[in-house]
Amino acid sequence: MSHKAFLRARSPEHKQQRREAILAAARELALRDGVRTVSLGGVAAAVGLVKSNLARYFATREEIFLELAAEEFRGWEAAAVARVAVAPGPESVLDALVETLDERPLFCDLLSHSATTLERNATMEAARAFKLQTAGSFAKISAAVAQARPDLTGDEAGELVAAAAGFAGLLYPAAHPPPVLARLYAEDAAVAALCFEFVPVAKRMLRALAAGLPSLRGEQGDSANGG
Amino acid sequence: MSHKAFLRARSPEHKQQRREAILAAARELALRDGVRTVSLGGVAAAVGLVKSNLARYFATREEIFLELAAEEFRGWEAAAVARVAVAPGPESVLDALVETLDERPLFCDLLSHSATTLERNATMEAARAFKLQTAGSFAKISAAVAQARPDLTGDEAGELVAAAAGFAGLLYPAAHPPPVLARLYAEDAAVAALCFEFVPVAKRMLRALAAGLPSLRGEQGDSANGG
Repeated sequence: MSHKAFLRARSPEHKQQRREAILAAARELALRDGVRTVSLGGVAAAVGLVKSNLARYFATREEIFLELAAEEFRGWEAAAVARVAVAPGPESVLDALVETLDERPLFCDLLSHSATTLERNATMEAARAFKLQTAGSFAKISAAVAQARPDLTGDEAGELVAAAAGFAGLLYPAAHPPPVLARLYAEDAAVAALCFEFVPVAKRMLRALAAGLPSLRGEQGDSANGG
Repeated sequence: MSHKAFLRARSPEHKQQRREAILAAARELALRDGVRTVSLGGVAAAVGLVKSNLARYFATREEIFLELAAEEFRGWEAAAVARVAVAPGPESVLDALVETLDERPLFCDLLSHSATTLERNATMEAARAFKLQTAGSFAKISAAVAQARPDLTGDEAGELVAAAAGFAGLLYPAAHPPPVLARLYAEDAAVAALCFEFVPVAKRMLRALAAGLPSLRGEQGDSANGG
């Protein structure tokens, strides 16, 4: 084997190690400081690369975070499918969705930024990979929910799973206020009522949706099914 | 009246005119380019001030947007209360919440950024003013909903109003994809299924919540009320 061939063979593996080191550094910084505050320069410094070198692996900070979000989707999918399968009752099926999200603060933080920021500053390929992962995870978790809750249709199960992820993105930042808001909540009861906790609110909303969605059957499109 | 007294009397009015010009310029830029892309420097240029001068009126871009969001809350409150009062049926009460939000794209864009960004880079006073406006508008719209829907408690009406605003913030960016995502949605059906439209999804979710919430009565706290 020539020296050149050795370099060629070694390069993809080395590149993959670098990518993983970058992702690990970004994960650590985001968990510590919040996704919002982590910059490409900060990740480069943490992993010991100059910024222009890091750009060979990821063009923007958003591409790093979309890849972390896809990883987190895989982790949530595995945990949610497993937890739903052993849920002891119909309501604990929905609770399992909320609890497995709540155990993943980085995922919730990433979800809160995905539509407003992350997807808006990424290449077509990075956005596609993230969206396909999202669609695949939603489909698998929805199938598990539909199996555990035969009172719901597959579409209704899908709406509940998407709603659970939506509530996580929506409520995570509200439930983790910055110091200025935390002081405000402590001072003013009217304002404190706007500080929604993720777990109880999301559980209650999902229960209400699951109770109400079947009452809308027949309203959409196929009105021949009655309503 | 001395010259100094004249200057003193004139100054607050002049300052108020400047503030309004800044808010109007930020509103126009945000409507045209999206809240996310508008910078303090861009607003300063649009209004013909140097950035250091603009800082005398607003310390950060987030303070400008929180004030615009408070204005938008007042507009939504007036429109929603009026529309709910003349809603011809129980479901059109909820539809009115969604439609009055959909008529306010800047408000929806601001809501999508409020918890993740706007509230995180503002002074205590700016955050307090915005939160008090939010609480006040929620209370007034909820009272109108509770009056038009006697099947719902005041608390349930409040949950529906907060959910409507939450769905607007959650779904607005997803329903207004950037060019990269729009191309992706056109190419790939699995990905396109993740492109949720605000109006139909929010109307359906609110109907399901309104149908399901009453079935949870008695589950929380006061279990003596039955369930």
